[in-house]
Amino acid sequence: MARRSFPLSEVYRLLEPGPVVLLTTAHKGRANVMAQSWHMMLEFEPPMVACVVSNRNLSFNMLKASKECVINIPTVELAPQVVACGNSSGRRVDKFKAFQLIPATASLVQAPLIAECWANLECKVVDTRAVNKYCLFILEVLKAWTDPARRKPRTIHHQGRGSFMVAGKTIRLRSRMK
Amino acid sequence: MARRSFPLSEVYRLLEPGPVVLLTTAHKGRANVMAQSWHMMLEFEPPMVACVVSNRNLSFNMLKASKECVINIPTVELAPQVVACGNSSGRRVDKFKAFQLIPATASLVQAPLIAECWANLECKVVDTRAVNKYCLFILEVLKAWTDPARRKPRTIHHQGRGSFMVAGKTIRLRSRMK
Repeated sequence: MARRSFPLSEVYRLLEPGPVVLLTTAHKGRANVMAQSWHMMLEFEPPMVACVVSNRNLSFNMLKASKECVINIPTVELAPQVVACGNSSGRRVDKFKAFQLIPATASLVQAPLIAECWANLECKVVDTRAVNKYCLFILEVLKAWTDPARRKPRTIHHQGRGSFMVAGKTIRLRSRMK
Repeated sequence: MARRSFPLSEVYRLLEPGPVVLLTTAHKGRANVMAQSWHMMLEFEPPMVACVVSNRNLSFNMLKASKECVINIPTVELAPQVVACGNSSGRRVDKFKAFQLIPATASLVQAPLIAECWANLECKVVDTRAVNKYCLFILEVLKAWTDPARRKPRTIHHQGRGSFMVAGKTIRLRSRMK
């Protein structure tokens, strides 16, 4: 995909609707990817994100050790790969190869971008105080990318037990909320 | 609405897709409501939720003092009221009266349920350690309700600057993710 830099002040608009994301990490020359829905915005600018990564996941160790990750936002076309990532562990399989996801070089972190995703947020871990109790990492988004060719990215939203809501139409209202 | 108790173990299925919610609080005989999108699941059971309430909002003071709230999940039919809640402050207006939202008595907390919402989660604040730095409250869901008459609740998902994505169709995939 052709990536275009996306303004950091607008990153909240990507994550607030609650898309499933693919979180990529890299440590000691090895990369991994997991499907994830437990994330939220914490601050507008610089954009900060809170996210939960279970300590049962390989990504937990890699995130804790490397202090970096990329939040990749897939669309419905990638749903089979997203589910495949969620159904498997990086301890047993190289998910990039197994599910044909193309890792691309990020600009500021070691973790790879997933080329097929419509948006990519390069992040560093800035606070680990809630990791032991809640597996909750606080991230700062250092760099954001989107694919300018995608006008209506239809994200998917996890409803549990194999159900995913696909983003529907957009309505516009006179909101003064940022 | 006729409310039916909803299993606590399934609460994550309501919040993971990222709906805009209406957060109600009550303190010293007074109730308030705010529109909110910065929330995420933190644990399955008992269900725990992290949420950000800005200290510029009246709800921040009420939540901090009362240690209780209700997360009410509206559908697209309520979008005008949701935006009206976001555009105004409880310091200046009684939003329930102004926007014709009917407060209903909760079972375990003082904060009211919003009768028009399709789901209501009664919560208590269980951890305030991240409040000073991030305005981040950790909640435990004590009781959950849904309206059994609503089969396909079309939630709304904030995209910023007056745009809201309306929940589209649901797809089913062979996910082993809970």
